Amino acid sequence: MAVSKAVSGPVAKPVARPSAAGSKASRVQRKVAGALPGAPLDIGELADLLGYSMKRAQLRIFDDFLSVMGPLRLTPAQFSVLLLLERNPGRNQTEVANTLGILRPNFVAMLDGLEARELCTRKRSSSDRRSHVLMLTEKGKATLARAKKCVTGKHEARLSEVLGEENRVALLRMLAKVAREF
Amino acid sequence: MAVSKAVSGPVAKPVARPSAAGSKASRVQRKVAGALPGAPLDIGELADLLGYSMKRAQLRIFDDFLSVMGPLRLTPAQFSVLLLLERNPGRNQTEVANTLGILRPNFVAMLDGLEARELCTRKRSSSDRRSHVLMLTEKGKATLARAKKCVTGKHEARLSEVLGEENRVALLRMLAKVAREF
Repeated sequence: MAVSKAVSGPVAKPVARPSAAGSKASRVQRKVAGALPGAPLDIGELADLLGYSMKRAQLRIFDDFLSVMGPLRLTPAQFSVLLLLERNPGRNQTEVANTLGILRPNFVAMLDGLEARELCTRKRSSSDRRSHVLMLTEKGKATLARAKKCVTGKHEARLSEVLGEENRVALLRMLAKVAREF
Repeated sequence: MAVSKAVSGPVAKPVARPSAAGSKASRVQRKVAGALPGAPLDIGELADLLGYSMKRAQLRIFDDFLSVMGPLRLTPAQFSVLLLLERNPGRNQTEVANTLGILRPNFVAMLDGLEARELCTRKRSSSDRRSHVLMLTEKGKATLARAKKCVTGKHEARLSEVLGEENRVALLRMLAKVAREF
């Protein structure tokens, strides 16, 4: 899912991190598809569209997050949920889902997965039987602690390296502004 | 899907663009869930995670894109495909999908939809019968022209207003850097 795919093909310069489009499998697919060994496609106005650039950058970040997480097998969304449960133990399902902006059916499915892996528990609220209260398990706490080290020490550290720390902070500020004010 | 949901609840200040969490429906849901009329949740380390902030901003941008598009009913991904077909007529399906980083099954489904709406055509390549060549129809061209006006005149213009044009350009540059070098 790297943007470098856009410059793959015979005329493209070698890229530092070869994408799937440069792999043998992809060259075979290219041959099967009968594509002319043409120039990379012109993305035109897309290069100036904030939404497009943000989606590409976000996918790249999520890919890296998953690979850094490795055997811990936590998606960015699952990691967010565990972090929120650690900070806010005993809050109910609706509050957690709303805070993260996760739709209810998706959130229920995600909790099923986390509970099956014994990372969190979902209990009926004693004050309202229709409400579910969420807590991390001991295993959940230990997994989160390891995950945080991966995220801070590898993922975010490398982002800071690529962007420069000052730019990383500026980027964070602009994204928050978009999410809040746009 | 607005971040302002995170500050909903009795202690939150009124927000400029009220989110669903502040609506009557949501207050009823809150009551049903039996949540304490508590403080907003503490998002802790999430506020400093680039991936999290980017996903929130990106969802906000996509929501706005969809609402700006209105009756033209084009998603950001569909808009990207039409733009790419306009700029690169007659290129094959695999090249277009690879350039945009869209997975093959998703891309096939998307083309089915665009073709059913008569916005583009998919024809077998004359040089390789196993390959499909993509073209915009006249209706596709006209729809894209209208869509571009919405995107430039409303969506991107307002983003530029929120961020300031200088920041918008800086943001675009940083996102491209992440997508390319991270």
